[in-house]
Order: sequence, then structure tokens, then C-alpha cells
Amino acid sequence: MNRGHRLDNRRIRILVTGGTFDKEYDEINGRLFFKDSHVSEMLTLGRSKLDLEIRTLMMIDSLEMKDADRDLIAEQCRATPGSRIVITHGTDTMADTARVLATRLKDKTIVLTGAMIPYKFGSSDGLFNLGSALAFVQTLPAGVYVAMNGRCFAADRVRKNKQTGIFEESL
Amino acid sequence: MNRGHRLDNRRIRILVTGGTFDKEYDEINGRLFFKDSHVSEMLTLGRSKLDLEIRTLMMIDSLEMKDADRDLIAEQCRATPGSRIVITHGTDTMADTARVLATRLKDKTIVLTGAMIPYKFGSSDGLFNLGSALAFVQTLPAGVYVAMNGRCFAADRVRKNKQTGIFEESL
Amino acid sequence: MNRGHRLDNRRIRILVTGGTFDKEYDEINGRLFFKDSHVSEMLTLGRSKLDLEIRTLMMIDSLEMKDADRDLIAEQCRATPGSRIVITHGTDTMADTARVLATRLKDKTIVLTGAMIPYKFGSSDGLFNLGSALAFVQTLPAGVYVAMNGRCFAADRVRKNKQTGIFEESL
Amino acid sequence: MNRGHRLDNRRIRILVTGGTFDKEYDEINGRLFFKDSHVSEMLTLGRSKLDLEIRTLMMIDSLEMKDADRDLIAEQCRATPGSRIVITHGTDTMADTARVLATRLKDKTIVLTGAMIPYKFGSSDGLFNLGSALAFVQTLPAGVYVAMNGRCFAADRVRKNKQTGIFEESL
Repeated sequence: MNRGHRLDNRRIRILVTGGTFDKEYDEINGRLFFKDSHVSEMLTLGRSKLDLEIRTLMMIDSLEMKDADRDLIAEQCRATPGSRIVITHGTDTMADTARVLATRLKDKTIVLTGAMIPYKFGSSDGLFNLGSALAFVQTLPAGVYVAMNGRCFAADRVRKNKQTGIFEESL
Repeated sequence: MNRGHRLDNRRIRILVTGGTFDKEYDEINGRLFFKDSHVSEMLTLGRSKLDLEIRTLMMIDSLEMKDADRDLIAEQCRATPGSRIVITHGTDTMADTARVLATRLKDKTIVLTGAMIPYKFGSSDGLFNLGSALAFVQTLPAGVYVAMNGRCFAADRVRKNKQTGIFEESL
Repeated sequence: MNRGHRLDNRRIRILVTGGTFDKEYDEINGRLFFKDSHVSEMLTLGRSKLDLEIRTLMMIDSLEMKDADRDLIAEQCRATPGSRIVITHGTDTMADTARVLATRLKDKTIVLTGAMIPYKFGSSDGLFNLGSALAFVQTLPAGVYVAMNGRCFAADRVRKNKQTGIFEESL
Repeated sequence: MNRGHRLDNRRIRILVTGGTFDKEYDEINGRLFFKDSHVSEMLTLGRSKLDLEIRTLMMIDSLEMKDADRDLIAEQCRATPGSRIVITHGTDTMADTARVLATRLKDKTIVLTGAMIPYKFGSSDGLFNLGSALAFVQTLPAGVYVAMNGRCFAADRVRKNKQTGIFEESL
């Protein structure tokens, strides 16, 4: 990097919680379900050479995420030795989890991201979002952020517009 | 963003120069060729809500890029009113173009990116790279950078490893 | 074709009834739904030059198909001027509809087909099945058939194995 | 099948010769090349339950196919114990190979097929063509055929239109 600005080369941890990102189609019963995370496959596709460690904490729809789940995520963030964390998360309550984490973690750069369309469904925004989240987590100062739609929002100023599915700045 | 760190909301300009990113398969003669840029389609897929302006400067393989082409790119960077520019570029000479731009443009954040596999070929790294380039361009200080493999390199310290196709830090 | 065997060049009619084939992912509410049929898009992808006419009769999950719907399908088969018909149909009750049609239509070649994975989800079997159904309908004598898994079954000797999702010969 | 018409259940042999079907993009040198055949992967995607045996004879562009190659293909057809054979083949000289085979093999049903776009490139017609070729080979009488564009042509009455890439009946 240019003098005075050096990207942190320490390992980035990715915490997987599920969300649309990782949904698959069950061809026997015609329903969407979770099997394994696709984050590793996506990183291979993106030819990522970052020093990453992936941990799957849960595989759930974020509408079903409970306080205990958010406690677990916060605890895992705290226990991460490095200071850079990306969390894959369902979009419906991503802003809620971001706010919970923001109140508890002050000294790490934590970026939540997700997808509107499952990665396995061909036309997913997931790869774009993952690329942007990994860039934001390398460059932003300590804080909790949501990376969606190519943009990055501070945890206390973001909401998902339920009508459009777009993340917006909230006041 | 958190107090003291505010992402620049000014318009980002994307300069398209071609490269593997935009190659297509000509089913009549079985050769790869350039038609139109896919950058706009990729931004739609990524559900980008950034304020972007796309300009196609050329559609060429970067092995065929001449000094005059790099002059044109530098001139277009200079003429861009905003300070944030992403350039899509073939990977073979991306580092060369970055170095040329770095000697001429000091006050803008310019991020070059590309792809190892054409976007139209299904398994492309392009969407991941575009997502990361757009995040880096919003967060890095003035300078010229190459964003590939999830990483970001300063223009004067990057090279493409011809054997592996991976971008590496050069000394 | 070789002497004595000439493929019927008359127009083939495709009757669309929905099924997994045509399901899409609604990114706002995270549910699967029907919008438009993808049959036309699939034929373009397959570079079909057959003389085809597509009619959408309904867009439903075949588990919700009622007697009145099957009456309508039979009526539309009868009203088709040509003798070659492909019906896209959900797999769950495809064999049931085939049997109903077999009792009512004796003088046309009718081939039902569908998909286990929605066409829009990237890894669909739909294009393979559509290709095979269109070939079977051009070559088989009058009768009602189910084309799935690369195979073709007579209407009175086929069932879907609910455990495996595979179509099998029934006795 | 309906009384009097029973599909042949004997094993189908697939002979792989390469062609656009199986081309891949070499991300190191930016050229198209052959590695392994994708026919097996395509059959899995199509959820084929046919009794098939795949043999790769060569992996070449059909413009490079020589008389000796066609001799080998004819010999392999003759040596096949069953009477039903599908040959995957580049489209440029598919009609030529079909004619050679038609003069030498009279007692088997042989269907040549291929693709205009490589299978790995996302928007390929290959899966559609493979589905139709496997259906035609099960239903047509002994003879050599070309299955492309959803249609099936006798070996002595087909040509590829070099301008449009479409297979047509020749006189």
C-alpha cells in the first residue's frame, strides 16, 4: 500500500450463520433447506488468496435467530484472536444482529454480509457481497458494519427495506 | 460509518478496458471475442446501489495494450471529476498499467481489477473481484491499487505470477 | 430419415402447466413462486429450430392440480390440430395426469416431462428433459408417455418413487 | 410402451470425440482447450437413469479430425456389442463423419450430437442436445443420424450452415 496505509495482513475469520446465502433446493420435497455452507466454494471461485479461517456457528434462517444465537455470535467474535471478522447472515435480521454486536464489541472490525438469492441458484448476489465484505473488513477501522448492495453501513445506521429488499441508511 | 470514518459518497466512475472479464465465446467460429461489456449486468446481479458511472474506453486483451492506450486511460482518470475510479482490465498487463497510472495520478483512489475466467463462462471470479474493487475504492486513500484474489496491492508492489495466475506482492 | 422412416414435420404444441420446471425464488419473501414460464428461454438456449407453439394453461404445483385442471389439459390436447404434444408438468402427479390423458386421447403422441430442480437454479435437469421429450414426441407412435431421467414410460406403467425422486416402471 | 412399441432396453454406448461440447477455458493462457469429457457430469445433472457406457475415443476439435480418426470411430461402432450408439462430436465436420459412418454401418442406430457453446460456459445447448440424442437413439430404426437444434437428420441429408451455425436438411 502507499506509505502510511498498510492493509492488515492478519488472518480474517469468517463466521457462518446460514441465511439465504447457503440455502439449497431439496429436490425430493421441493423445499428450501440448509445442508453445508458454500462459503468455501465461493472463495475458491473467487480465487481468494486471503489468509482465512471459516467457522460454521449455525445454519439458520435469520428470522429464526434468537437472543441466545446472537450471544453465541458475540462470544465467538470476542474469542477470535485476530481483529478482522466477516459474518455471513440472513438479511432479514442482519441489522439487528449488527446492533447487538456493536454494543458489545468495540475493538474489532466486524462486517456482516449475506445474499438476496441463494448462491446455488445461479444468479446470486452472494459472490459480489462476499468480495466486498472481505475488502471492507481489511480496510475499515474497528466497528461493526453491514456490507450489502456494494455499500457499507455502520451498525447503528442501517435497515433493510422490507418492500424493496435493499439496505438503506437509517437515521 | 462510525464517528471519524465516513465513506465517501461521491460517484464512482468505472472505466472499462476489456480483458478476460468481458470475453465471450463466438459460437460461429469457436473463438473468444469482445462484444459488449458485462460490467453493468454484473452490477445488477450484485444488486449494487452505489452511485456509479460506467465508461467503456476500449475492449481489448491487455496483451495488446499499447502506450497510447495507457495514455488514454490516464487522461480519462485525470478528466474524471470525482476522486474514486475502478478500472476493469486484462490481468496480463494490469500491473504495468497500474504503475503507469501511479506515476501520473496522485490525488485519486484508482483500483484496477479483472478476472481469470470470463464472466459469461459461469464459473468466473469476476463478480467477486468487482465487489472487492468497489469496496476498496470506497475505503482506501488516494493511490493506485490492484484488487485481485481478494487482496489489494499498491501499484508499485504487485506482479502477476505467470505460472499460477495469482497476483503477488513484488519487492 | 432413412427410407421408410420419416420424422413428422408438423408443428409440435407445448402445453405449460407449471411444476418445478418453472419455479423461481422470490428474493423479497424467500419463497418459491411462479411468475412466467421458462420454456421459451430454454428452447432458445437449446437453439431449437423445431416448429413449436407454446401455450400456458396454468402455472401450478402439480400437488395442487385438481380434476378440473386435468379436464382442461385433456380438452386442450383434443383441441390441438396437430398430433404431437409435449406437456410440462410438476413431477409429483405427472403419472396421474398421464393416466387420465391416456384414457381419453388415443390418436395423438403426448409426452409429459418436468424437472426435479427449477430451471432458474443453475443445476436443473430441465433442459435435458425438454430435449428428450421433444425427441420422443417426434418419434413415438400415438400414446401418452412420461419422459424423465432420459427414459420414456408408457402412461399406464410409470410411477415416481417418492423416496428417490426417480421415475420407475410400475407393474 | 404402448402395445406394439417397446423401447429397446439394451445398453447405450456413448462415444466421446471432443468438440465444442467439451472445451474449457485455460485461465493461465486464455485459450480454449480440452481436459476431460463433461458427458458424465451432464448425465448426472440430467438425472439420467439409462444404462449407459461412456468411452472417450479422442478429445479433438472436429476441424482437426482426419480419416484415421473416422476409421477409428467406425471401428468402435462396429465393435460395440449393442445396437444403440450416441457420438459426441464437434459440429464443424459432424455431417462428414455421419456420412462416413452411414456407408459402413447399416445395422445399428447411431446418433451424432454436439454443442455450439461449451458445456462449461453456462449457456450451453449441450444438455438439450444430449437429452434429445439419447431419446432419438432409443426410438429410431437402424441408421446414422445427426441430432441438433431439437431435430434429427439422416446422415445423407444434413449440413451445417456455416453462417448461422444451424443444421439444415441438405438435398
